[in-house]
Amino acid sequence: MGELWTAEKFRSFFHGRFNACKPYVFMLLKSAVIAGGAGIVCGLVGTLFHYAVDKATDIRLQLPWLLYLLPVAGIVIAWLYHIAGLDNDRGTNLILESIRENKRPPLRLAGLIFIGTVLTHLCGGSSGREGAALQIGGSLGSGLGRCLRLSEKQEHILIMCGMSGLFSALFGTPVTATLFSMEVISVGIFHYSAFLPCICSSLVSYKISLFFGVQPVAYHINLLNSQGFDLTWRIALLALACALVSILFCKAMHLSSYLYRRFLTNAYLRAAVGGGLVVIITLLIGTRDYNGAGMDIVGLALGGHARPEAFLLKILLTALTLGAGFKGGEIVPAFFIGSTFGCVAGQFLGLDPSFAAALGLVSVFCGVVNCPIASIILSIELFGSGNVLAFAFACAISYLMSGSYSLYSSQRITYSKLEPTFINAKTK
Amino acid sequence: MGELWTAEKFRSFFHGRFNACKPYVFMLLKSAVIAGGAGIVCGLVGTLFHYAVDKATDIRLQLPWLLYLLPVAGIVIAWLYHIAGLDNDRGTNLILESIRENKRPPLRLAGLIFIGTVLTHLCGGSSGREGAALQIGGSLGSGLGRCLRLSEKQEHILIMCGMSGLFSALFGTPVTATLFSMEVISVGIFHYSAFLPCICSSLVSYKISLFFGVQPVAYHINLLNSQGFDLTWRIALLALACALVSILFCKAMHLSSYLYRRFLTNAYLRAAVGGGLVVIITLLIGTRDYNGAGMDIVGLALGGHARPEAFLLKILLTALTLGAGFKGGEIVPAFFIGSTFGCVAGQFLGLDPSFAAALGLVSVFCGVVNCPIASIILSIELFGSGNVLAFAFACAISYLMSGSYSLYSSQRITYSKLEPTFINAKTK
Repeated sequence: MGELWTAEKFRSFFHGRFNACKPYVFMLLKSAVIAGGAGIVCGLVGTLFHYAVDKATDIRLQLPWLLYLLPVAGIVIAWLYHIAGLDNDRGTNLILESIRENKRPPLRLAGLIFIGTVLTHLCGGSSGREGAALQIGGSLGSGLGRCLRLSEKQEHILIMCGMSGLFSALFGTPVTATLFSMEVISVGIFHYSAFLPCICSSLVSYKISLFFGVQPVAYHINLLNSQGFDLTWRIALLALACALVSILFCKAMHLSSYLYRRFLTNAYLRAAVGGGLVVIITLLIGTRDYNGAGMDIVGLALGGHARPEAFLLKILLTALTLGAGFKGGEIVPAFFIGSTFGCVAGQFLGLDPSFAAALGLVSVFCGVVNCPIASIILSIELFGSGNVLAFAFACAISYLMSGSYSLYSSQRITYSKLEPTFINAKTK
Repeated sequence: MGELWTAEKFRSFFHGRFNACKPYVFMLLKSAVIAGGAGIVCGLVGTLFHYAVDKATDIRLQLPWLLYLLPVAGIVIAWLYHIAGLDNDRGTNLILESIRENKRPPLRLAGLIFIGTVLTHLCGGSSGREGAALQIGGSLGSGLGRCLRLSEKQEHILIMCGMSGLFSALFGTPVTATLFSMEVISVGIFHYSAFLPCICSSLVSYKISLFFGVQPVAYHINLLNSQGFDLTWRIALLALACALVSILFCKAMHLSSYLYRRFLTNAYLRAAVGGGLVVIITLLIGTRDYNGAGMDIVGLALGGHARPEAFLLKILLTALTLGAGFKGGEIVPAFFIGSTFGCVAGQFLGLDPSFAAALGLVSVFCGVVNCPIASIILSIELFGSGNVLAFAFACAISYLMSGSYSLYSSQRITYSKLEPTFINAKTK
């Protein structure tokens, strides 16, 4: 402290400081330029995808006979994946693995999943769009990373940026989109280093989608005025039931995929039979509520109206649709299942059906993807912050009690849900 | 699949299922009973602490001459720690280490920090209360864990529960309290396995504090109606400036502690000199704004009014107070520094001063504790969810750009902020 500060010493001091802060400044600039750039691409593609799926849904509603073409659509999708050399498409699992194990998703996957999802929605398969968004975004991010010759780890961050960006443009929940792609890769790990790049991509993409008129998803629900002790128990029981529903949904998805592959080894046959089954069941139950994403049914459930059997039928039809090789995703179906189940079960538990539907939506989402932080923020972006404690509490229960089940077989349980221990176990 | 299911096979199947879900059910029950029980203790102690600090502040405001006793209070605190055998008290650092490295915080720490903080506030030291709350809660959690003869890892979870519980009772932000103690231990790691126990403790403790009339902290600020591109740049610049202020605050705290210990090896002398310096500076600047926690000044800043020099004076006085061995914490001072700086700097950047103060509060908090998720939730619990994207964006910038600086020297940078790599580096 007492030494004289010569000019040389000053120079070396500032040189040291400059070197120490350089990587952070570079990261800031990279986030703004590269991740922001990825956000532009994702925003444009996401907006296009949003409108394409919406248009497909509109056409299906106008031309109900399109449902009968579902087996044909399945065959076309299988054929497209075959000629692209992606016969064993692993969907969102491939994206998760690409970040953890450096398996690169091919850029053509973005185009295929885009067309596949639109065809699935056009002909009434029961499927979402967020899984597709993650795949499109992940492939775009990886492709961009290769173009720019980024290092492996930087490319992983860019894949997460792509996922965030597309999710954000499609669904209009930019913070959820940001946190989800950082949290979904491995259970028990949060990829903090991707935070700034992901939120830059998500923010830019969100603004672009707004510019092109995409309406962010948000609902008005009946909030709780206060949360007494008896209400806490009811919420806990509903969240526990939602964790069991999450497990049921995950098991149904895995079982359907297993059974299709075991008994129908030919992909075209699988698509035709799967499409046929969905058509037959749709005709048997006599409603088109379970075809497509079903955001309207989610809206009704959040308004307090749902049929008791809805969540089971949605599980069945989504498992039959996606297991057969149709495209889209499992997240909006999870919203559907959670909100309809919550709405009905909540009434048994003496909860307001609208609030219970919201709680069910968030809890089932949390249970199937194992992302409690993204789930809490989802509840805030969809329903406001009036009951954040109740939602966080439900997420904590659903996260724990859904155990090692996951929609994504390639998600790893890196840290145990029971104690802070590295276990790196497979999900079920 | 085709095999016959005998009664024996059924039994072994259900036995296997039961064994698989047993640990989760146990964890759920433990969370409800043990963590909930910890929440009761924390709620009662937290409420008492809240009222004790409030009462001390009221007395100080009525009897301004108490300030002159600050050196004496410092000597009493040093003496209390000496007779308790805790001469080298490391404050919140010890709690963080207790979770990571199994150093047990002694139960008497809870009593000492309680009294020390009340004395500091009574005589006008510049200090907060959340750091003290973390220490009280952590010691109580650890003590409870030892009473119940829990395993080491279970005790760690209970320490986090204690931290969450006390923070929650004191500040009335239960979700922030929950996530903060899971996030603050190591930079880049989120302790998911503590989620349900921590939220149970936090929830129970919060309810108890409400029952005893503690008012949750929440502010009304001027929100942005929309967030255009130019606003995004202003927010980014303000967050960047806040990251630099965070670094300045961390450096001031470490430097003050270093200088005190280097030039005044005797703890009593340190306390007397430190107390004397605070008294002299208070008299020189001619205002009592910087004594105590200063929540009223935070409120004014969030209303759009702050003096340009306020953040610098608060940094100086907090470093002088806490470095000399006074007790309390650094979190409310961080709120003070962030909100006053944000309020003033925001006006230069063309932002609404009330909104900029809120953004500054959250960004500086994020920068000094390296907890972006807790910071986002803090913004929601304090200011509502209207501008969650702006707050999350500011947190992302502040988290990255505060680099390896931290208020807590025992916080480790476990994963790099720049890429997903395990580095386990020391903070600065």
